[in-house]
Amino acid sequence: MHRFYSPSLSPHQKHFRLEDPQEVNHLSRVLRLHSGDECELINGCGALARVRLITVAKQWVDVELVAYSQSSPTGRSRITLVCALPKKSVFDDIIEKCTELGVDEIVPVITERTEVAPSNDAAGRMNARFKSVVISASKQCKRLWFPRIHPVIPLETAVEMLARDGKTLVIPWLGGERVFLHDALRGRPDGEYVFFIGPEGDFTSREADDLVNRGAIAVSLGDTVLRIETAAIAVVAYARLA
Amino acid sequence: MHRFYSPSLSPHQKHFRLEDPQEVNHLSRVLRLHSGDECELINGCGALARVRLITVAKQWVDVELVAYSQSSPTGRSRITLVCALPKKSVFDDIIEKCTELGVDEIVPVITERTEVAPSNDAAGRMNARFKSVVISASKQCKRLWFPRIHPVIPLETAVEMLARDGKTLVIPWLGGERVFLHDALRGRPDGEYVFFIGPEGDFTSREADDLVNRGAIAVSLGDTVLRIETAAIAVVAYARLA
Repeated sequence: MHRFYSPSLSPHQKHFRLEDPQEVNHLSRVLRLHSGDECELINGCGALARVRLITVAKQWVDVELVAYSQSSPTGRSRITLVCALPKKSVFDDIIEKCTELGVDEIVPVITERTEVAPSNDAAGRMNARFKSVVISASKQCKRLWFPRIHPVIPLETAVEMLARDGKTLVIPWLGGERVFLHDALRGRPDGEYVFFIGPEGDFTSREADDLVNRGAIAVSLGDTVLRIETAAIAVVAYARLA
Repeated sequence: MHRFYSPSLSPHQKHFRLEDPQEVNHLSRVLRLHSGDECELINGCGALARVRLITVAKQWVDVELVAYSQSSPTGRSRITLVCALPKKSVFDDIIEKCTELGVDEIVPVITERTEVAPSNDAAGRMNARFKSVVISASKQCKRLWFPRIHPVIPLETAVEMLARDGKTLVIPWLGGERVFLHDALRGRPDGEYVFFIGPEGDFTSREADDLVNRGAIAVSLGDTVLRIETAAIAVVAYARLA
């Protein structure tokens, strides 16, 4: 059954109108659903509504609630990905795949070796695009709780925000003293993991040392040099599947 | 230092000529290296040669050997990925990322729900493209042993070829009785793993039952429905990092 995003859902509202232009367009023009058809709605916060379409117009769709359920967040661990901002489409790919793999938060960061920090305008457009990637990936993979995508911030700010008690900070790094990822996470099966993925050319020694001084565990991801997106997807996949 | 592919390398040949059009073009026109510059050559079978450029011509480059080493294949386990052939560029992405992550063999297969089996001509072009993705990813991630990419074959043929003693066959599947991936691989840390990734819409029950009857372990990769490429990258990442 097709699934659409509708931020305001309630079990008590039996009839309501969908007005989001992207979702209405997808429903009526791309998938060509008609009145009488059923579909599912999600709000990104655990709700799943089955609805019947009453009227399908160009700009809106009136629907009737058939069934409603609210799920709790699942997942034994809580996974945060702090990732140096790479070139445009690569970050979309990271958001898409990590959403499928159950990441809870993604924090794009500016590091010393990040090529360009986005302007305010560009950052606004970027956030809107990231949100649409999350919605689309969540619909496709049947995820009910959306991950939170933070605005772009400097690495130091992210460290300040995340280096708190009880969180396991992990920094895959190409240099220095490191342990294997599975040793770093062993014995912490229900933990809160924060992974720091560096830019092309890796974190600088200063950045990595700062992180290790704040308690981060430097790990090796093996013999080869992974691209940003491969490293990001690999650590999230590992944390999900371990 | 820039790295190029040169299939025939020998520690005994001090002067030789590079003639592969793609590699020569990349060296001379894209990166604009000159005589006197040094670079590295790999043959995909563990050799790493450092060479000095003597003459850079349009069609060829004459080089002089500076250093030569031969490495053994690393990796505690041996990872084979049998993957339903998805749409064009998606498989390139799977090959690229799994090459970085240390996959040893990739077997693209035709399943009951695979949309189109390629014609002989298309299969030939596809194999050539797969090879160039392997070369490019291996250069980028500093991998010295290339993974083997098999030609496209029917799933049954792949199962016949791979369901042998000593191999751990794993099939992530959306239905039926399943265990967690980490339980399936537990206690087999030095094993030979063969992962079967189904097409969009998953394997049919008949295909999955056949695999399970041949000894494959059906596993769950979590609560969400992963795209083909996400599932493929996730299992290879897990096997590499576990």
